[in-house]
Amino acid sequence: ARIVLLPGDGIGPEVTAQGRKVLEKVAKTFGHTFEFSTHAIGGNAIDDFGDPLPEATLTACRNSDAILLGAVGGPKWDDPNAKTRPEAGLLRIRKELGLFANLRPITAQECLIDASPLKREIVQGTDILFVRELTGGIYFGESGLTKNADGSETAFSTATYSTHEIERVVRIAAIAARQRSGHLTMVDKANVLEVSRLWRRVTERLIRAEFPDLKYDVVLVDAMAMHLISRPSTFDVVVTSNLFGDILTDEGSMLPGSMGLLPSASIGSSGPGLYEPIHGSAPDIAGKGVANPLATILAAAMLLRHSLKLESEAKAVETAVDQVLAQGFRTRDIAPKGHPSIGTEEMGQQVLDALK
Amino acid sequence: ARIVLLPGDGIGPEVTAQGRKVLEKVAKTFGHTFEFSTHAIGGNAIDDFGDPLPEATLTACRNSDAILLGAVGGPKWDDPNAKTRPEAGLLRIRKELGLFANLRPITAQECLIDASPLKREIVQGTDILFVRELTGGIYFGESGLTKNADGSETAFSTATYSTHEIERVVRIAAIAARQRSGHLTMVDKANVLEVSRLWRRVTERLIRAEFPDLKYDVVLVDAMAMHLISRPSTFDVVVTSNLFGDILTDEGSMLPGSMGLLPSASIGSSGPGLYEPIHGSAPDIAGKGVANPLATILAAAMLLRHSLKLESEAKAVETAVDQVLAQGFRTRDIAPKGHPSIGTEEMGQQVLDALK
Ligand SMILES: CC(C)[C@H](C(=O)O)[C@@H](O)C(=O)O
Ligand SMILES: CC(C)[C@H](C(=O)O)[C@@H](O)C(=O)O
Repeated sequence: ARIVLLPGDGIGPEVTAQGRKVLEKVAKTFGHTFEFSTHAIGGNAIDDFGDPLPEATLTACRNSDAILLGAVGGPKWDDPNAKTRPEAGLLRIRKELGLFANLRPITAQECLIDASPLKREIVQGTDILFVRELTGGIYFGESGLTKNADGSETAFSTATYSTHEIERVVRIAAIAARQRSGHLTMVDKANVLEVSRLWRRVTERLIRAEFPDLKYDVVLVDAMAMHLISRPSTFDVVVTSNLFGDILTDEGSMLPGSMGLLPSASIGSSGPGLYEPIHGSAPDIAGKGVANPLATILAAAMLLRHSLKLESEAKAVETAVDQVLAQGFRTRDIAPKGHPSIGTEEMGQQVLDALK
Repeated sequence: ARIVLLPGDGIGPEVTAQGRKVLEKVAKTFGHTFEFSTHAIGGNAIDDFGDPLPEATLTACRNSDAILLGAVGGPKWDDPNAKTRPEAGLLRIRKELGLFANLRPITAQECLIDASPLKREIVQGTDILFVRELTGGIYFGESGLTKNADGSETAFSTATYSTHEIERVVRIAAIAARQRSGHLTMVDKANVLEVSRLWRRVTERLIRAEFPDLKYDVVLVDAMAMHLISRPSTFDVVVTSNLFGDILTDEGSMLPGSMGLLPSASIGSSGPGLYEPIHGSAPDIAGKGVANPLATILAAAMLLRHSLKLESEAKAVETAVDQVLAQGFRTRDIAPKGHPSIGTEEMGQQVLDALK
């Protein structure tokens, strides 16, 4: 299998290196051949090629089986008036590769619960799979800016969805729900938005026709922002549009007590998937060897599962991570006060050692 | 002053009755004359007049100095395919009266902190004033639904904002920030949305020109959804667009441990303001005399302050509520386990007794 590595900016290269080592060990242990190639994306790609997603990167991605991304962005490229910004590379790769479903598991791990801003009894048992639509909605709809006669300006951004775009992402969520606890929640704002009313109709019809076995419910996005704090453990799979998913998955990422263990997968109906940690490029600790590589390693596990269909291999990586955590190994970001911590390399090595 | 009461549905009438009693006592104690008239809105207005905002109600509101609303909605009117729904009344009254700024204070009260889903050390000291734009954005932009040739459908909803709409609501937020800790945060999604980029430019220009004394910062909406959980006490005044405000204020309403004490004010540049508790119509406890009237009473205090410019009277009501809570009086919803609780009427009476 061909795997493209997109280390990106900040701590991206450090954590991607550990992800690669784990994938190499998986290849060796289970007798697979993974070919790696590394390409530029984000801020460094702007610096070197004037483009956050250079043509060569996109071509390599198209010709690959899966992509492992580190992180993009940093203060150097943050000027809102800049001609091109790192995020543009992310948005474009999603669209170009048709990665319409973003899977974000949010699981409360016992070893981190006490670091959560929420009370233990609220977070305990939380195990949500968010499925966020990723190539439609207000992110990609028509937009514009008008200068009015009096010198004022009017801007607009349009949220658009079609039946097909809704169906394909809901189907992915519904299949996942079937493999989990069989509970699917769809989040919209159908009491106000026309585009949400279409989501509601299309989803209800699809679930009734193809997934009548699921427990299905709908929640308004404002209510969901509350429930996610007050009773997160009552959700299983949650599917929603691009913008609502952006907000809710980030809100949800606070629950486990650290983003350091949270991976994300962006997949389409065919072609390579894109896997990454949900944390950012953390420029403040870049190059110091202290970044937590576990989210990237868990993203590599998702890569094995979803793009390479190597379920046992994925499980093996996840089990190795669990074991390393159970043994008490912690990078700085997830170490309780007074607990000794290890660096990026060392954490990667521990996972390698635990991997069987 | 002329005050319109819109009791609405569910527990609305019960809590509004207590709000009215408090306003009457204020009138008597401080020597004012308040004329009250009561009108229909929401589900019961659909039942009685076929319209969630009957003409007579709207006319009365237009001719008033301020409006005190209970709550609207309930399962009876929840059919998404219904021709008209209670929420339509809310949206229309906001638009018709030009109530473009929704003020939602979120304060962590010591007596409720332990009921918060968040840890005490996170919530403590939280005192945020959300200012949500209420008559623009994707709530009121163009929208539509197209049937495609292949039987599929495409829906769209447009978020639109103009310089003037942004400036007037930001100005209200900035003035409030000046009267508080002098810190204003603007929330947008300027890394993706054209309409947010206009918010950012217009707000920055306005703050630089008219409020250079404020500490001003911008936060992306997804990051704000995180910070609101991880460090809510670091915010003072937060201003944002209609949809983001809808989501973030509801998320924020979970912090204090109960919605039972949270009021909301919707104001325009002239004309009456609309004041209400943020909780819903709670049909499950309607008519039982157990609803918590304090949010409505605190909404009445906001009415005194913002629409009637009676600051000492507003303070007196707020102080009375604080005192009643300090004395240990609790309605069921905010009573800790084992603590005795009192009913709606009795809680209203306690506030009256404490009011000087
Ligand atoms: C960087 C930004 C464009 C992106 C998004 O909003 O999708 C990010 O927040 C994410 O969630 O991946
Ligand atoms: C009922 C609904 C239309 C309304 C809104 O979304 O504005 C409500 O959620 C609110 O926040 O007042």
